[in-house]
Amino acid sequence: MVSEHKTADVSFESLLRIFTVPEGPDSTLTQIDEELSRNLNKFLREHIVAEEKPLWEIEKDFSNATIPEQPEFVSDHTQHLLDTLVSHSVHTSAPSFIGHMTSALPYFLMPLSKIMIALNQNLVKIETSKAFTPLERQVLGMLHRLIYHREDSFYSQWMHSANHSLGAFCSGGTIANITALWVARNNALQAQGEFKGVEKEGLFKAMKHYGYEGLAVLVSERGHYSLKKAADVLGIGQEGLVAVKTDNNNRIDPVALQEKIAELKQSNIKPFAVIGVAGTTETGNIDPLRDIANICSQEDCHFHVDAAWGGATLMSNNYRQLLDGVELADSVTIDAHKQLYIPMGAGMVLFKNPDAMKSIEHHAQYILRKGSKDLGSHTLEGSRSGMAMLVYAAMHIISRPGYELLIDQSIEKAKYFASLIKQQPDFELVSEPELCLLTYRYIPTHVRHALEKADSTQKAELNELLNELTKYIQKRQRETGKSFVSRTRLNPSQWERLNTIVFRVVLANPLTSRDILSSVLVEQREIAKTAPNLMARIESVVDSISNK
Amino acid sequence: MVSEHKTADVSFESLLRIFTVPEGPDSTLTQIDEELSRNLNKFLREHIVAEEKPLWEIEKDFSNATIPEQPEFVSDHTQHLLDTLVSHSVHTSAPSFIGHMTSALPYFLMPLSKIMIALNQNLVKIETSKAFTPLERQVLGMLHRLIYHREDSFYSQWMHSANHSLGAFCSGGTIANITALWVARNNALQAQGEFKGVEKEGLFKAMKHYGYEGLAVLVSERGHYSLKKAADVLGIGQEGLVAVKTDNNNRIDPVALQEKIAELKQSNIKPFAVIGVAGTTETGNIDPLRDIANICSQEDCHFHVDAAWGGATLMSNNYRQLLDGVELADSVTIDAHKQLYIPMGAGMVLFKNPDAMKSIEHHAQYILRKGSKDLGSHTLEGSRSGMAMLVYAAMHIISRPGYELLIDQSIEKAKYFASLIKQQPDFELVSEPELCLLTYRYIPTHVRHALEKADSTQKAELNELLNELTKYIQKRQRETGKSFVSRTRLNPSQWERLNTIVFRVVLANPLTSRDILSSVLVEQREIAKTAPNLMARIESVVDSISNK
Repeated sequence: MVSEHKTADVSFESLLRIFTVPEGPDSTLTQIDEELSRNLNKFLREHIVAEEKPLWEIEKDFSNATIPEQPEFVSDHTQHLLDTLVSHSVHTSAPSFIGHMTSALPYFLMPLSKIMIALNQNLVKIETSKAFTPLERQVLGMLHRLIYHREDSFYSQWMHSANHSLGAFCSGGTIANITALWVARNNALQAQGEFKGVEKEGLFKAMKHYGYEGLAVLVSERGHYSLKKAADVLGIGQEGLVAVKTDNNNRIDPVALQEKIAELKQSNIKPFAVIGVAGTTETGNIDPLRDIANICSQEDCHFHVDAAWGGATLMSNNYRQLLDGVELADSVTIDAHKQLYIPMGAGMVLFKNPDAMKSIEHHAQYILRKGSKDLGSHTLEGSRSGMAMLVYAAMHIISRPGYELLIDQSIEKAKYFASLIKQQPDFELVSEPELCLLTYRYIPTHVRHALEKADSTQKAELNELLNELTKYIQKRQRETGKSFVSRTRLNPSQWERLNTIVFRVVLANPLTSRDILSSVLVEQREIAKTAPNLMARIESVVDSISNK
Repeated sequence: MVSEHKTADVSFESLLRIFTVPEGPDSTLTQIDEELSRNLNKFLREHIVAEEKPLWEIEKDFSNATIPEQPEFVSDHTQHLLDTLVSHSVHTSAPSFIGHMTSALPYFLMPLSKIMIALNQNLVKIETSKAFTPLERQVLGMLHRLIYHREDSFYSQWMHSANHSLGAFCSGGTIANITALWVARNNALQAQGEFKGVEKEGLFKAMKHYGYEGLAVLVSERGHYSLKKAADVLGIGQEGLVAVKTDNNNRIDPVALQEKIAELKQSNIKPFAVIGVAGTTETGNIDPLRDIANICSQEDCHFHVDAAWGGATLMSNNYRQLLDGVELADSVTIDAHKQLYIPMGAGMVLFKNPDAMKSIEHHAQYILRKGSKDLGSHTLEGSRSGMAMLVYAAMHIISRPGYELLIDQSIEKAKYFASLIKQQPDFELVSEPELCLLTYRYIPTHVRHALEKADSTQKAELNELLNELTKYIQKRQRETGKSFVSRTRLNPSQWERLNTIVFRVVLANPLTSRDILSSVLVEQREIAKTAPNLMARIESVVDSISNK
């Protein structure tokens, strides 16, 4: 808001000033800048209000669709942002915010981000990025090697080769997965005889040329929701994304996968890709990648691994065998903004074969000329920022053994939390952690006993009430603002695959202590007491079961 | 590089430290941080080396594909980044860097970016973004209003409505354009009777259901290269992107457009979208949007406007009529990282109808639940950063009249430069500026006279040599590092549509002075003298023409 005694003016001179001269040392913005540099965590703690303001009330501050006719002073507007936006943002880096895949970030990334943004490179082409282009190619090479551990000569041949690409850096896992399936689709429907390829002639003619009735991508029923989006965008249709059933540990069942493939082929539907999940979003489980690889090799399918979450586990020599078989994948998605601790907006897809991306290569007159090393000729996105610099810096400053420590402690913390939950008589661990994710729910001992004895109607009824309770606790805990866990819906085998709402916890923040984990449970138990009506309804079902 | 007397260690304690305690006040990083805050332009000037190092030499510094086994100290690594990366990056914000669509940025965006990155919100859902969600919706509302100027009640009804969306914020214009065409495709092939819609059943079944032989998107031959990518990804095929011829000012010819549509329909190909370009990438020209709108309305086509570059012109009440008819578009792409002066990675697509995006809406169990206001249910991307905050801040601090000044002075500067070029006997203006882009080439007076008199073989021969000269000058100027213009290939009507390589200039940087423009021409004239062999070959053709 513009202060009353002075008004910002709109003259070309004042505008030029904002492109050149920073505010004085006393300005709000300079102070915030320094405060952030001195102690990021303190800044966030002090400026983000813990208790949740209802969304409809926040919306009032963001209701005007008119672009202001009057400029504001930088300092005034910064104060306004602190009051209305920062204070009601989410403290995603808080050690007690364990509900989603965000974490504290290494502090050195803040000033480095400022350099990155100030340089304002555009990675689409060398003319607007220069050294950032080889840097990004090196980062892709490093991730490629982490997955495929090819020899030095492989990387000296391909990493900087014009017309080749080991992968694509993109804004996140969704674009990475779409890119992988785009490449897979185009390679499956490539030029042949008179047919010029799906990229030129489109899907309809491709299907007619190849004589298929449909296309399919197979993934476990725990695959990420974005894959449906990918199937839609690519013209395959959401129904072409075929869900394969999972075992009791949320891992794809290879026998079921083979059966599905056979079934599709009998209907003349071409299964052109299978996706293995390395770290399901809800439970963190990893598909049997080697088994899928074998099936894909038999069936001549593209094998893509969605390791957006779990890919960073490869940094740990102690746990990388969890992803055994990933090196057989034709392509792999890894998000750097997840367990590589990079700020939001950094995903990657890597391809085993440096030629794979040829099927999506594109050129233009004024940029991306043939033979150039411009990154833009192999990316779905056009203009892109220099985010790869942050990955590069983190790789060097943290190093592989540093990442190993981070990964290991996250997994071990999840194991600890699982054992803590199991020790509580009134909590139930629903999914064991394989990576640093687990799910559980609050269910008093006698309720659990009743549930075990109940007939199927009572079981369903009681389970519905427990779902309500879980939702109630999760929502109230979030609103109170001391800590945050998320929730999701699973179909656990121990409860006859009933729809079960559970707390979901992601333990990737290195600052999350064991004390915090204990207090999360204490708080949830306390919140449960604040729902007497719901508890009474649960008790009444429990009584009816006991009295049977 | 790790200094010799001390080595960074990999202990969990040292790792925790990087998540909490910033470096001391004397560290390289802190010093850079302060230097950047004090004077960004000075920092960039001092750290970016002007003269170009060959790419193959830069690549040597980025050749190792192994993730380091040894951590580096933050300060040491920062110095390494300055030496190898920053020094050989591109000074995109330099006032003499007038070859691409980058500019100096308002300095207040640097510290604000740091806040944005430190908050590390994920805009995919409210649980990880809270107030950022209404903020982004407001930004979309502001841009929507800038285009469509609907009444207050429209925005109070739709801007924050769950299950509706006025558009999508995305990483850039390419994703914005893909999103628009995705929506258009899905609406054109929507559910009907037994058919469940292209999003469910895919393109092949959709085509069979509707009985089309193909799909087409029409755009002028000056459309952005990314549209081909979009046509490929969406399964339409690059051949489905039909180029329509342009008039002498690089604007689509409406008569030719109508003819093409009729032709396609006769072959039973469905033209489901027409794209109007508002600011072609190469010459900055704007298609006759109102004419296209009328044709689209007759033909029941989706009308998309790619105003990635030119959309910001709507901020100027003096020039917004250049985009007359944009308000009739079904969707419009605008890049904030172009003429809204936001750092790289901020594009938007706006839809006239708040229901338009329903055809691509998606949900999931753990997030994006139905009825939620999560932005992720209407975006192609998944996890996204809080970039919208920077657009919001710039709108308030610069304000509409401030943007108007910036837009006006860019256009007027381009007009000035055009007149300056025309005054030179040895330069030829190839395309007049409509926005702040123009193209020209170096061609001494007597050579031009010869070209005018030449027969078609001589014309072609001479033109080829001039193309070589233009390439030579452009490349040498870039390498020298004093200034940068880009180059592209046009087919100007004044030269019988011969392939003509031209200098391309974008004058969006407010710090670019008239003196700089003069010196760019002086430098180019000087560089031309350093190509005696080429000049001699030109003279010999000129002689043969004169002697005829």
